[in-house]
Amino acid sequence: MEISKLSNELYMTTTRAPVNIAVVKYWGKANEDLILPLNDSLSLTLSTDDLCAQTTIAVGKHFTEDRIWLNGREESVKFPRIQNCLNEIRRRSKEAREQRKADLEPDYTDWHVHISSVNNFPTAAGMASSAAGYACLVHCLGTLFQVEGDLSRIARRGSGSACRSMYGGFVRWVKGEREDGHDSVAQQVAPVDHWPELRVLILVANDQKKDTGSTSGMGSSVQTSTLLKYRASTVVPQRIKDMTEAILNKDFNKFADITMQESNQLHAICLDTYPPIRYMNRISWDIVSLVHRYNDFYKANRVAYSFDAGPNAFLFTLEEYLPEVLSVVRRSFPSTLEGIKGSLWRGAPGPTKPLPHKLQDHLKIVPQVDVLKYAFVTKVGDGPQTVSDFRQHLLDIRGMPK
Amino acid sequence: MEISKLSNELYMTTTRAPVNIAVVKYWGKANEDLILPLNDSLSLTLSTDDLCAQTTIAVGKHFTEDRIWLNGREESVKFPRIQNCLNEIRRRSKEAREQRKADLEPDYTDWHVHISSVNNFPTAAGMASSAAGYACLVHCLGTLFQVEGDLSRIARRGSGSACRSMYGGFVRWVKGEREDGHDSVAQQVAPVDHWPELRVLILVANDQKKDTGSTSGMGSSVQTSTLLKYRASTVVPQRIKDMTEAILNKDFNKFADITMQESNQLHAICLDTYPPIRYMNRISWDIVSLVHRYNDFYKANRVAYSFDAGPNAFLFTLEEYLPEVLSVVRRSFPSTLEGIKGSLWRGAPGPTKPLPHKLQDHLKIVPQVDVLKYAFVTKVGDGPQTVSDFRQHLLDIRGMPK
Repeated sequence: MEISKLSNELYMTTTRAPVNIAVVKYWGKANEDLILPLNDSLSLTLSTDDLCAQTTIAVGKHFTEDRIWLNGREESVKFPRIQNCLNEIRRRSKEAREQRKADLEPDYTDWHVHISSVNNFPTAAGMASSAAGYACLVHCLGTLFQVEGDLSRIARRGSGSACRSMYGGFVRWVKGEREDGHDSVAQQVAPVDHWPELRVLILVANDQKKDTGSTSGMGSSVQTSTLLKYRASTVVPQRIKDMTEAILNKDFNKFADITMQESNQLHAICLDTYPPIRYMNRISWDIVSLVHRYNDFYKANRVAYSFDAGPNAFLFTLEEYLPEVLSVVRRSFPSTLEGIKGSLWRGAPGPTKPLPHKLQDHLKIVPQVDVLKYAFVTKVGDGPQTVSDFRQHLLDIRGMPK
Repeated sequence: MEISKLSNELYMTTTRAPVNIAVVKYWGKANEDLILPLNDSLSLTLSTDDLCAQTTIAVGKHFTEDRIWLNGREESVKFPRIQNCLNEIRRRSKEAREQRKADLEPDYTDWHVHISSVNNFPTAAGMASSAAGYACLVHCLGTLFQVEGDLSRIARRGSGSACRSMYGGFVRWVKGEREDGHDSVAQQVAPVDHWPELRVLILVANDQKKDTGSTSGMGSSVQTSTLLKYRASTVVPQRIKDMTEAILNKDFNKFADITMQESNQLHAICLDTYPPIRYMNRISWDIVSLVHRYNDFYKANRVAYSFDAGPNAFLFTLEEYLPEVLSVVRRSFPSTLEGIKGSLWRGAPGPTKPLPHKLQDHLKIVPQVDVLKYAFVTKVGDGPQTVSDFRQHLLDIRGMPK
């Protein structure tokens, strides 16, 4: 059952939606209002087993207004990006009802909604939660209001990169050509099981410095960077082509090169912004150096880094390399909490594997204690899924947060 | 007396030449061998009172080979860049002798030379010494061998940016159009006394991490940065125009904007290089933030930063703002050695001026002790000058280092 009918006057459904990490980066809007990007981007959807947003939406005949709770705290539903999603879903729902002549189905399109959404990872972890959050909201609304067809363009109106979280596996956000943004949608490049050996390590830096948000950051880049337009018009199209090829051929070496070059160019554009924006800190740079030294040792890419609008590192590797990569990371960034309550690693990374002496000599690791707050390994995963177990609803039988 | 005649068989001369700091940056060669740049650049020549190279060259009938001593230590004269300068000067010298029918003048064009060169600032200070060094070498050779006309294209063959040190004041290195590099020369944009209020603070970071040299760094950028060519072909020409205008109009606000944007773009290109190059460290970034917060307080630029291929900061300000800027810098980066032997500041910066409370609140300074190794204030200065006081020669009457 996708929708729980609690009575003739209260329906609800619950969705879980994933985070995604871009390997060809989105930075800069062509249209702020419609959230149209300057260039295509390409991402990996990450497994909801490790990171996800979960949203329950109830629609009730007696609700007096639309309401929303984020991580248990009521927020204003008037936020324009939420309104854009709600209005568009209701419009599409009515359209769909008319098309399928759904006169006999219950019509609750105009009833108010209660929305409750949580992340299964601390916001303080600095993970971009808006992509998962809006993907979850839109998928959940779409299910409840029985909207068919592409929902990614609606998720895009919530948060640009949310459109990519509407699909599992490897996903491209096509910027589109139309002025109204109708063709600015996400498309799956390869399904979730296409490259099962791929692993993603997430290293959360223990640094609470407040960053420039990505929305204001990219706005500022569009205004002031003299390099951004060239990147968007000329560099990215080739990289999208090359990255798609690398993914389809499961060519890790090439995948890693483009991933790292894209991360670096995003941060180059931030530096070219005026005043300059800096997201990567000392620890991020230590990770960059470590990755290049490690790959250098093997004369091939075995691991790649990517940084978004913050200092946290996403590392990509293959299953076969994972144990050694984990050992290298754990030796470089040991935690005094390891093995005790509140361990650095979510999920046991297993015992540290001894590193070959030659590799140790090459890496010249100077361990930095407790600079990471959080670390875990995840995989490519599915897009948003309806949660059929009604006990998972975040709203009770009155439609209020549990 | 430009040339000291020690005997009929030994002549010598001594030159002092300045450092320059680019405000429109040179990064990337179009021709590695001829040292032709991808784009024009523009610099300020700094006073030799504070930073300079000093070179004595002797030409002796009985010298058995060309020899060179750098900071008292003999080095190989076979280094191609030195050879390029020597050969070109000798060629031009013969050409000039023929033209002026100098049959009666002593002809020592084919005698060997002894060269001794020193910097009046520690190499460890991390200042780019090659520009001053090659400008000094070429000016000194040009004087000794009586070469007339533009010498900047010869200095360019030693070290690209050395050509800009061949003139005082504000200097543009025109990339030129000819394949043989003949028109790739430096030109004075404005003389040394054009903008006497301008001050330059040099802050040397106390961080001995070995950097990527600028030659290999820019080579790597040319190979791998997808943004560099666009910068060189499209961004820089406009900035050269704007910067020239700002200098001619003594428009500090505009001068500061372009200076900071250029510094940032140079380091953006370094980040876009693969593997990425990082010259700015944590202290550099703290200086960037401090400068933007300071200018923000006055809603106008009162100080600008520039970073080259290293973490050291060059700050530009005007005489009227200098005392407060110095106070802000000294409060942000205090030294435990202040006032004692080995003081941070070369030349007394004067007593710390109390800062207005509102400014203090705005800047939110968290003092960082002993992160600077060295600091001083300098000005725009003259090009290379012959030192007429023969006691300043670095070679003795036998042509050997004193």
